[in-house]
Amino acid sequence: MYDVIIIGCGCAGISAAIYAKRSNMDVLIIESNAPGGQINKSSIIENYPGFESIDGPSLAYNMFNQLQKMEIPYKYGKVIDIELENNKKIVITDKERIETKTVIIASGRNPRKLNIENEDKLSSRGISWCAICDGNLYKDKNVVVIGGGNSAAEESLYLSKIAKSVTIINRRNELRADESFINELKKKNNIKILYNYKPLKFIEEENKFSGVEIQNTIDDKKETIKCDGVFIFIGYEPETTFCKKLNITDENNYIIVNDKMETKIDGIYACGDVIKKDLYQIVTSISEGAIAATSAKKHVD
Amino acid sequence: MYDVIIIGCGCAGISAAIYAKRSNMDVLIIESNAPGGQINKSSIIENYPGFESIDGPSLAYNMFNQLQKMEIPYKYGKVIDIELENNKKIVITDKERIETKTVIIASGRNPRKLNIENEDKLSSRGISWCAICDGNLYKDKNVVVIGGGNSAAEESLYLSKIAKSVTIINRRNELRADESFINELKKKNNIKILYNYKPLKFIEEENKFSGVEIQNTIDDKKETIKCDGVFIFIGYEPETTFCKKLNITDENNYIIVNDKMETKIDGIYACGDVIKKDLYQIVTSISEGAIAATSAKKHVD
Repeated sequence: MYDVIIIGCGCAGISAAIYAKRSNMDVLIIESNAPGGQINKSSIIENYPGFESIDGPSLAYNMFNQLQKMEIPYKYGKVIDIELENNKKIVITDKERIETKTVIIASGRNPRKLNIENEDKLSSRGISWCAICDGNLYKDKNVVVIGGGNSAAEESLYLSKIAKSVTIINRRNELRADESFINELKKKNNIKILYNYKPLKFIEEENKFSGVEIQNTIDDKKETIKCDGVFIFIGYEPETTFCKKLNITDENNYIIVNDKMETKIDGIYACGDVIKKDLYQIVTSISEGAIAATSAKKHVD
Repeated sequence: MYDVIIIGCGCAGISAAIYAKRSNMDVLIIESNAPGGQINKSSIIENYPGFESIDGPSLAYNMFNQLQKMEIPYKYGKVIDIELENNKKIVITDKERIETKTVIIASGRNPRKLNIENEDKLSSRGISWCAICDGNLYKDKNVVVIGGGNSAAEESLYLSKIAKSVTIINRRNELRADESFINELKKKNNIKILYNYKPLKFIEEENKFSGVEIQNTIDDKKETIKCDGVFIFIGYEPETTFCKKLNITDENNYIIVNDKMETKIDGIYACGDVIKKDLYQIVTSISEGAIAATSAKKHVD
């Protein structure tokens, strides 16, 4: 029986594994995708202290390499369920049942897709999902924001201090954001909101992102907006289907934890993008991973 | 007037500066010692994701270099006071008065010293102040712990799972730790407690740490304990003298913050080793720095 099974090998899971292993726990880490998680989708990372500038896949490689050098067991597999049995937990993958004293869920989240042309191709090459991460790349440039909820509003305000202009593409005839955000948006003269428009495709010219084609949802008229980058804020899907029945998630499927990364189930912890929090960043995720491992260690002892 | 002045250029302050600058704030960072803070005192760091193994000064250099490449203004100076004036703050150093909208305190803490022979010389070369950081170096080895409070007890329990033996040197005839810790200590057969002993000096043989000379406080008899490493847990002094009169610290001089790194004074934030928290690590400090900067940004907007 393992001391701890970590579900997910993104930066939160990796940090948890490093801390767990160094505290002499029997650790297993399970991942169903490429190790490194969402980091792999960043073309350039400049806000992780210690690296002036590094591409995501290289940072992911560094972190995964660190795990392997520490001889932390890694298993490729998809977790489909977690069963509780007296003082132990059983992690059930598509291949086997594995017993453990504690579980750290670090399964992350995925941005929802628009499912339009060039969305994957230009991902991280003009298309971004995080203003705090990538806003700095668009100093005095023109950006488009797609979305109409609180995230779209809040991130547009953030971007408006950095970019020359922000154009919000909103599918409905009004935003679904809080009144206070809407009032703030109105005060900014470099933010423009286009209502009743949906994105049709992302445009690539000479191998570079160059804009968005949009369509009016009322008269079906199409037009093209030239811009330097686009930010998509239409929500995320936390990877929590496999633990749905544990009832540890909120209405948006994020896992609720306290400041020790404890869920409401004794011996089950969560960290990284899969939890409900304010700031989704590498630095916050690795911190939570270390805290989760420290809490699991105390539980096992 | 600056948007934010960051006091302290350890990893928490550096992370705060990176996030503040990238959000387009006018940032100043002030430090009275070597940039990098306590990291500089670690001979080897193996729990920071992304670096398999790096010495502290090199990691500190990387981080400071990153600041400089981002052209974040850095000032050498000792902060002696913070004044509040309507909607602004005045940071007073030994040289000048500087106005700012917000302040992030990241001034860290220093381990209390025993003030005995070879303490500085063997620092990080056998002498450590953090079991979670350095415990892993002493797998199946013999270590000594100096101290008798909760930290000494808790960290001894942690070390007992990794090291072959743990010998606690306690100045008094009993520990000042919580009953629950004392009960746990008694259960471990690889933990030995020596009461009424004080450390006299650290011993170096052939350029390497080799043990501790201790003295019985009752009969003054001296003896030498051979060991592979020693952990000192006699407390820390947070660097908060300059902000004493703001009344934002607890009884041990740590700054109290909420999960947004807000102190009870609007526009003043704190992060890193200077705050009251559970886990004092690089990963937690850089996370708090990013969160503090994000909170300061919202305040300034």
